[in-house]
Amino acid sequence: MAEFFPNVPKIVYEGPGSDNPFAFRHYNPDEVVAGKSMREHLKFAAAYWHVMRNELSDPFGAGTALMPWDDGSDSIENALARVPVFFEFLDKIDIDLYCFHDRDISPEGSSLAQTHEYFGKVVDELEKQQKATGKSLLWGTACLFGHPRYAQGASTSPQADVFAYGASQVKHALEATHRLGGTGYVFWGGREGYGSLINTDMKREVDHLARFLHMAVDHAKKIGFEGQFFIEPKPREPSTHQYDSDAAACLNFLREYDLLDHFQLNIETNHATLAGHTMEHELQVAANAGALGSIDANRGDELLGWDTDQFPTDYYLATKIMVEVLKMGGFTKGGLNFDAKRRRESHEPEDLFYAHIGGMDAFARGLKVAAKMEADGKFNDFIKARYSSFDSGVGAEIESGTATLDSLDAYAQGIEPPKLESGRQERLENLLNDYL
Amino acid sequence: MAEFFPNVPKIVYEGPGSDNPFAFRHYNPDEVVAGKSMREHLKFAAAYWHVMRNELSDPFGAGTALMPWDDGSDSIENALARVPVFFEFLDKIDIDLYCFHDRDISPEGSSLAQTHEYFGKVVDELEKQQKATGKSLLWGTACLFGHPRYAQGASTSPQADVFAYGASQVKHALEATHRLGGTGYVFWGGREGYGSLINTDMKREVDHLARFLHMAVDHAKKIGFEGQFFIEPKPREPSTHQYDSDAAACLNFLREYDLLDHFQLNIETNHATLAGHTMEHELQVAANAGALGSIDANRGDELLGWDTDQFPTDYYLATKIMVEVLKMGGFTKGGLNFDAKRRRESHEPEDLFYAHIGGMDAFARGLKVAAKMEADGKFNDFIKARYSSFDSGVGAEIESGTATLDSLDAYAQGIEPPKLESGRQERLENLLNDYL
Amino acid sequence: MAEFFPNVPKIVYEGPGSDNPFAFRHYNPDEVVAGKSMREHLKFAAAYWHVMRNELSDPFGAGTALMPWDDGSDSIENALARVPVFFEFLDKIDIDLYCFHDRDISPEGSSLAQTHEYFGKVVDELEKQQKATGKSLLWGTACLFGHPRYAQGASTSPQADVFAYGASQVKHALEATHRLGGTGYVFWGGREGYGSLINTDMKREVDHLARFLHMAVDHAKKIGFEGQFFIEPKPREPSTHQYDSDAAACLNFLREYDLLDHFQLNIETNHATLAGHTMEHELQVAANAGALGSIDANRGDELLGWDTDQFPTDYYLATKIMVEVLKMGGFTKGGLNFDAKRRRESHEPEDLFYAHIGGMDAFARGLKVAAKMEADGKFNDFIKARYSSFDSGVGAEIESGTATLDSLDAYAQGIEPPKLESGRQERLENLLNDYL
Amino acid sequence: MAEFFPNVPKIVYEGPGSDNPFAFRHYNPDEVVAGKSMREHLKFAAAYWHVMRNELSDPFGAGTALMPWDDGSDSIENALARVPVFFEFLDKIDIDLYCFHDRDISPEGSSLAQTHEYFGKVVDELEKQQKATGKSLLWGTACLFGHPRYAQGASTSPQADVFAYGASQVKHALEATHRLGGTGYVFWGGREGYGSLINTDMKREVDHLARFLHMAVDHAKKIGFEGQFFIEPKPREPSTHQYDSDAAACLNFLREYDLLDHFQLNIETNHATLAGHTMEHELQVAANAGALGSIDANRGDELLGWDTDQFPTDYYLATKIMVEVLKMGGFTKGGLNFDAKRRRESHEPEDLFYAHIGGMDAFARGLKVAAKMEADGKFNDFIKARYSSFDSGVGAEIESGTATLDSLDAYAQGIEPPKLESGRQERLENLLNDYL
Repeated sequence: MAEFFPNVPKIVYEGPGSDNPFAFRHYNPDEVVAGKSMREHLKFAAAYWHVMRNELSDPFGAGTALMPWDDGSDSIENALARVPVFFEFLDKIDIDLYCFHDRDISPEGSSLAQTHEYFGKVVDELEKQQKATGKSLLWGTACLFGHPRYAQGASTSPQADVFAYGASQVKHALEATHRLGGTGYVFWGGREGYGSLINTDMKREVDHLARFLHMAVDHAKKIGFEGQFFIEPKPREPSTHQYDSDAAACLNFLREYDLLDHFQLNIETNHATLAGHTMEHELQVAANAGALGSIDANRGDELLGWDTDQFPTDYYLATKIMVEVLKMGGFTKGGLNFDAKRRRESHEPEDLFYAHIGGMDAFARGLKVAAKMEADGKFNDFIKARYSSFDSGVGAEIESGTATLDSLDAYAQGIEPPKLESGRQERLENLLNDYL
Repeated sequence: MAEFFPNVPKIVYEGPGSDNPFAFRHYNPDEVVAGKSMREHLKFAAAYWHVMRNELSDPFGAGTALMPWDDGSDSIENALARVPVFFEFLDKIDIDLYCFHDRDISPEGSSLAQTHEYFGKVVDELEKQQKATGKSLLWGTACLFGHPRYAQGASTSPQADVFAYGASQVKHALEATHRLGGTGYVFWGGREGYGSLINTDMKREVDHLARFLHMAVDHAKKIGFEGQFFIEPKPREPSTHQYDSDAAACLNFLREYDLLDHFQLNIETNHATLAGHTMEHELQVAANAGALGSIDANRGDELLGWDTDQFPTDYYLATKIMVEVLKMGGFTKGGLNFDAKRRRESHEPEDLFYAHIGGMDAFARGLKVAAKMEADGKFNDFIKARYSSFDSGVGAEIESGTATLDSLDAYAQGIEPPKLESGRQERLENLLNDYL
Repeated sequence: MAEFFPNVPKIVYEGPGSDNPFAFRHYNPDEVVAGKSMREHLKFAAAYWHVMRNELSDPFGAGTALMPWDDGSDSIENALARVPVFFEFLDKIDIDLYCFHDRDISPEGSSLAQTHEYFGKVVDELEKQQKATGKSLLWGTACLFGHPRYAQGASTSPQADVFAYGASQVKHALEATHRLGGTGYVFWGGREGYGSLINTDMKREVDHLARFLHMAVDHAKKIGFEGQFFIEPKPREPSTHQYDSDAAACLNFLREYDLLDHFQLNIETNHATLAGHTMEHELQVAANAGALGSIDANRGDELLGWDTDQFPTDYYLATKIMVEVLKMGGFTKGGLNFDAKRRRESHEPEDLFYAHIGGMDAFARGLKVAAKMEADGKFNDFIKARYSSFDSGVGAEIESGTATLDSLDAYAQGIEPPKLESGRQERLENLLNDYL
Repeated sequence: MAEFFPNVPKIVYEGPGSDNPFAFRHYNPDEVVAGKSMREHLKFAAAYWHVMRNELSDPFGAGTALMPWDDGSDSIENALARVPVFFEFLDKIDIDLYCFHDRDISPEGSSLAQTHEYFGKVVDELEKQQKATGKSLLWGTACLFGHPRYAQGASTSPQADVFAYGASQVKHALEATHRLGGTGYVFWGGREGYGSLINTDMKREVDHLARFLHMAVDHAKKIGFEGQFFIEPKPREPSTHQYDSDAAACLNFLREYDLLDHFQLNIETNHATLAGHTMEHELQVAANAGALGSIDANRGDELLGWDTDQFPTDYYLATKIMVEVLKMGGFTKGGLNFDAKRRRESHEPEDLFYAHIGGMDAFARGLKVAAKMEADGKFNDFIKARYSSFDSGVGAEIESGTATLDSLDAYAQGIEPPKLESGRQERLENLLNDYL
């Protein structure tokens, strides 16, 4: 394998005491935690778009990223040349899975047919590299937000031809995902929303979005794709308002349009916080509906109002996420995808490694802490006890549906006024600190 | 009728040129707009809690409101004495409808039975005043958030006895609403959420909330109440996170628990913006699900992070709300309830009138503008034309469900690349200004 | 003059009843309001960057703007070719003034010397066009945020060579501004802040920023530039935190580093709201320090957390701004610069005109309303009366500095407890609506 | 000493392995870290208002706190009875210092004279308890925000008599602080701002605020009080906008009114984040001006828009604060005051202890980590190296003031284009995690 990252060694576990910035302190891939190796628990994936294509521009400045392997062009040759670089990255960072949008890996051609042709060539190359390295695809998707034709939506565009273009991209991206063995396929609707309601028919747009997803479900059946479909909620940016704004909005939509059997959610921390929710809230909302599927691992800056997509290094956050992952029995067709980018000021290739190391170590630490917390059962015991009045008596009648307003009115008039037990939030927060 | 507001005349319409602060400039109750009187369109209601009970305290300071009719006590006598004051207010401000929580109108007694007894006495008095004045009840509700027993939830409390207390209150409030001819009954779940997930079983709590609402639906059938049930979304405050956080979250919940046939939404501007949505977004989300029922008329300060419940005086806001109300064909069992309070610095009784006058005039103006916009049809025509590619051809195939990813892929490869029409947001915003 | 906007007529005043989207309803340039023509009051300026260079890209998608006059290259020829297009725009929209950054008008060359050479050529062309058309420059500035070399700051870069590059740009931009008769020169420090404090020496950076501004002041003296220097506050974006975060932060900095005699503030609505302030707050803070100089006219979307730079069409906002402008006696060396862009979906050249028309009309309306409010004096009278207890007696002693804690303690113990007058916010808000 | 907290033992250090919720894991008061005992470093103070007076109400619900020692009345007897409870709390939690507002410790009387008389009685009692226990006062202040008379401001009230009342309170609170040996006196201006600019003369109000502070400075001199005056910034709540909105706004005010020699800042985490700043930003802004004095230790919930005043348990936050405290050489007349309250659901007296233990342990841990980081010097070394181009050559000329735009232009044209070093934010964030 060529050496595209000459200054970076293969990253290995050296433990908490290590001084080596190119080493893991907590992520020991084969260490067994709660019955499985950390590698199996965490199912890390790298994002092709951030690792290979993110030039680190922002709305006020040009890209800063140094990418010596990239000629800066939109050619198919350049696209093909990136593939081995990415697999070298996966190898050195020791990540087994990856995710892509169609347009990350291959360029627009001069016609839609040529665009598909280019895409096919790069998929061939990815397949070859997967075989050579044992790496595999977590999920694929189509980029239906970057090109100007999607400025007013893809499946929610007011122009039917744009819907057709989007459908064509999804067909090819879905088939490629199937070919590459992806275990999932994601829809993130960055343009499936509106800039202003003043010129928008929201009802008609949402109907179209549902039609679009049903077509994908039908096509998956047709081609035998058994991966999981995911929707990724985000409230705003790039649109003023996306329809898939948070977990509850997605679930409402999936229920209304009879899609809940076919979709799970891909929850991202920064999207959760932009929607005004904690990450654990969104994870629980999804999990309670049986729809927690995959996680985009990053974090935001809550004092900024946009998607900063920072690497997740906060131990509290990583712990809370892993608590939910363990609670649902681990990932099945999803994983932890680093939808995260270096800061614009961290423009050297080495920074890609520092950034991923930090995120991986935080989740490894979070996994260990969460496993210990689950094993000890102190939090679960507290919660179980807190609600125990519903396990019998009038509480059980309420849960079983035999109580009525009349029966409860009579009951309430016959008891002593209820006295609350303390919720003990502070004590439990201290207990969480004991584990860190 | 006694004169509790000696400095305030009966408020009447004097037109835009008036200098009189105690007069309407735009609200001419009997003027016909779009086929109905303004009075019938707007269905204004006053909130008993803000008019009679809001002392204008805040978390850092004591109440400032001057209420010469109130002895400051929690006695049943004081509660009864407030009723005629309220009806004088309704008379002078020329508002036909009102809304209440049980604990606004009557105090806690020394036992639950006594609490209900007090409540019954005040309901008697309200009934008498309604008959005497022709005023009527828009909706009633139970206050399940003020008393310490509800600190951890009412129907979502971890303690079953608290659930029972809440059920008892709802039974009585619902029956009173029925007796007083209320056309609706509202649930606002200020404590139906959590302070922290660290001590919370969200799934069990939401199950309980659904049980609670089903009991109310069953009881309404039993007693013959044919009013509409409403849920009022709000994302946070007083809880860190309420389950009914926005319109989509409410709809998701109602669908999941088979309650959508029985509930509509009561949308409030300040709750919409706290959830990160515009008011018109929330109204359309509700309306698209056939669930837009009633409106709490106020506004927030988007630079502040809590419910400021200010009176709605912004013409843009009032116009946008009335556009949605006209679009759904007007209110049926809902109305425009001023869930709005004076600033703490506006502590004189006269300020109650200035505040309501401003809100009523803004909505009257909004109604007229909205009716003109609807009659002219410019906005609707633009939107209809914008989506017209879905009225025939491939667009119609998409809508009818005959198109597939395969058929659209073939189609897309055969057409010229789509060219977008401008969304013309700026031009439409100018057009809106032409109407103001 | 060539016809680059063939579909757009010269925009003229047609009055409120007009149906023509290419006409002013309120902006009647030569109409006299409060002693001056509207043209003189409003001093509208167009932003070269938004009109000529904004491709309407966003972080998730490519530019959509149609610019048939632009060959898409970074060549000096293309740069020169844009100039007459811009002046045709100014002519048709009837705006007299403009603003630019050096890099808007001319490209980076292969060396710094060539960059300056290109810049000089375009400045020659601007000068020629100014003479031919009578248009003139409001203010110029140097773009010290777009190029990757400024990713970590210009004057606050950790690398001294970057500071020197920035200084070189400012020297040339300042001299060009002087040559073109600009009445002001602006500093907006989009990179003069930090991404994270973890790698930042804030004190040293701010010291460098002050040195930078002193150099500009010294250079202005040397070359005889008598225009006004402005700082433009903004709290975040593109940096995580800019040092010039709001008006108060700028004033604090200017006072600390002895620069307040040389700088005024250029206040922008969207920057104000991002900092958590209303526009009128920022204007008053600046005005109270004698430092309100110029205005960037736009608005944000308070539900979004970034600079949307929308065109200002809200009559309330425009009125409040013009109240402050009239209160300070009008602009001297500043003006109303439309630092505003069309939405990405409004990609046709015509949309540039709709957008500016809407903004100009809103400010024209705001001016008329503000002038009427000032002439009537109702608001001022209310405020004067509200504070009148400080005009004599103990209030006057407080203001004159003769009162002490001891004297006031004695005084307070001898009076009746103070009774507050209502602040009458709601009544005044109604009064404001009477003017709209 | 009476036993008001019978279920709570004296809290002592048991180390990280302890299972005892009533024990410190990290705070070992006499352990020496970086040359001083933890006790001396941290200077913890308890807030009388939160410990003794906070009933845990919120805008939607009544207080929940159980206070068996309190008879619920506003009597002077009850006020006196609270004092020994508070000192028992201080003893058991092992906190040496405390802070109060005048109205926390004693009630309003029927006249201002009686109010002062009551205050004096409680101060006598505090003095007695201080002597008996060795506890002492960190700082005192006057509550100028709770009473209705201050609804429109105290020193910024439009009514001079209200200013006089505020001055009277400050005189007595300042003298009491002096008598009790307080090392500081704080001004927090919760009402020193506005509800709306529509009825406000901001300039006149700010002038009055400055007069007020000058009077306090003069009175301190007169009575020989040598403690430090502090201003506590907060952007909003309870006012819509307070004048002391953040550190920079305070410094600007202090500079403008010639008060910077007499005041330092008391920085609070939750106030920092409400102003859109990180805590470390505000600390550095204050420290860079030589004005960092004291800290209110708490944290907010960044997804909520108000002051949640939660106990600070986040290790990252505590570490960052202690880094700044060590950098300035420790506290002189300030300390770490727990301006923090339990959640409303944590209503038992024991929760007061859990809450303070969590905060104290977090800061103890933060101190140890910060001391280690400072001793190792890795962060400082990185930063020093990052800016080293300013230590000599052109950078030194810039810093010394000998460089000009002309000299730098010539220099810049003669060098190779600057190449940035990576800012290494991610690597440094990983390094920070190594210390936790």
